[in-house]
Amino acid sequence: MIIIGEKINGAVPKSGKAIKGHDSDYIKEIAIAQANALDEDNDYLDCCVGTDDPEVETLEWLMGIIQENTDMRIAIDSPSPEHCVEAMKFANKPGIINSVSMQSGKIETVFPVIGKPENEEWGCIALLSDDKGSPAEADGRIELLRQILEQADKYGIAHDRLYIDPLVETLGTSPESLLTFAECCRKIKELDPALHITSGLSNISFGLPVRKVINFAFMALAMEAGMDSCIIDPLARDLRGVIYATDALLGEDEYCGEYLGAYRDNIFGPVKEA
Amino acid sequence: MIIIGEKINGAVPKSGKAIKGHDSDYIKEIAIAQANALDEDNDYLDCCVGTDDPEVETLEWLMGIIQENTDMRIAIDSPSPEHCVEAMKFANKPGIINSVSMQSGKIETVFPVIGKPENEEWGCIALLSDDKGSPAEADGRIELLRQILEQADKYGIAHDRLYIDPLVETLGTSPESLLTFAECCRKIKELDPALHITSGLSNISFGLPVRKVINFAFMALAMEAGMDSCIIDPLARDLRGVIYATDALLGEDEYCGEYLGAYRDNIFGPVKEA
Repeated sequence: MIIIGEKINGAVPKSGKAIKGHDSDYIKEIAIAQANALDEDNDYLDCCVGTDDPEVETLEWLMGIIQENTDMRIAIDSPSPEHCVEAMKFANKPGIINSVSMQSGKIETVFPVIGKPENEEWGCIALLSDDKGSPAEADGRIELLRQILEQADKYGIAHDRLYIDPLVETLGTSPESLLTFAECCRKIKELDPALHITSGLSNISFGLPVRKVINFAFMALAMEAGMDSCIIDPLARDLRGVIYATDALLGEDEYCGEYLGAYRDNIFGPVKEA
Repeated sequence: MIIIGEKINGAVPKSGKAIKGHDSDYIKEIAIAQANALDEDNDYLDCCVGTDDPEVETLEWLMGIIQENTDMRIAIDSPSPEHCVEAMKFANKPGIINSVSMQSGKIETVFPVIGKPENEEWGCIALLSDDKGSPAEADGRIELLRQILEQADKYGIAHDRLYIDPLVETLGTSPESLLTFAECCRKIKELDPALHITSGLSNISFGLPVRKVINFAFMALAMEAGMDSCIIDPLARDLRGVIYATDALLGEDEYCGEYLGAYRDNIFGPVKEA
């Protein structure tokens, strides 16, 4: 599972307050805490301004703090494709652009840049939506994926650099949410098993009580359907445990070696004080 | 989901101590606590002596306490088919026999009794094992199911009275455990969708740390494969939440009505004091 740590994001209240107040200490603290719970060769830290601060400048500041204090690669997260591309120059190591979609202006701005040979280690999250939003049915979303792949092929971007986000609707208002998501996952893997599938899955439980149990069940079912990446709080210990458990149950972790290793490394289970 | 509450069982240390000491108060307490978390029209309380006390006599005592204090139906749980059948006369309402298998003497003793017209509301758990144990592969287990169904048909026992337990091996030593279980579930439902599928699933996490996260993930994946009953601690609140969440995610609980109802009824989520 490739994890994109979500805590540095202006839309998260504590993080937003720290960004507005230029509180480097808090950003440093959550960068290090996330890095300690992740694997620098496998995972990423998301970095999203999400406030009305000047975006590129603030990304530079945030990315600086992350890179001075951790060895994590960064997922540059902005609604502006121009800002994503501008911020690439602040990265010490290739990361991920979060995100493009078939919404006008996104792919046209990002793909020519990450398609350059010097950027061939950059990844990109691609949402299955366009200017009209995300189609209700899986088939409509897969049609958007075909269009995205056509563009990727045009710019020479290998499919294993793409993290496809089929989009998760809220279960409380969309009873078919998981079923549609899982159908998308299966069709994505049919189209090309090299494609990664990712999701900022917490939307599944929005507005419902005891969100964690919905997130646990969604995680297991989405992984079974083929999701191999997710945007989560890496310090959510039980959710991390569910991920390791699901990998083992699905035959991806023989004799639970990874599960036991993560437990020993204090990633999940009762907190072991240092 | 049909839940069989597992707490009255001599193999559970506290319960075993209460049974040995004839501590009616404790049995009453866990009978009521489980009943409060279950639905008398849908669920059952398991009743297993599991100590070296005289079994039929002790079943009578335990079943008496359960029935004086709750309206729950009982799953009579004994390795002895004769004792299961004897204890049926202590039940005020039809329950479940836990269990038969293709092990010699089991079906031959139980099916003629529950096949009688006056017992037509009794259910029966059937393990997919025989005198040699449980076959490693799904196909071997399904072959045992065919033999069980042949006997059920011979005694006129409708398939919707059977709770098939495909058996869960420990993940730590059997990496294929969930995959084999899920394959069995799919094949059972192919054979006859009227058959229930149940499992005492906690064996999946035996010997591993942080067992709950493995149980959560197993529950979601097993339900997706078709499991519609389970033998669990009904007071395990997060696990109960995962069950309601999974039902909603799989499209079995439109707009989360059951999920929200169970939350309001204090079945899962933070404990609400009366």
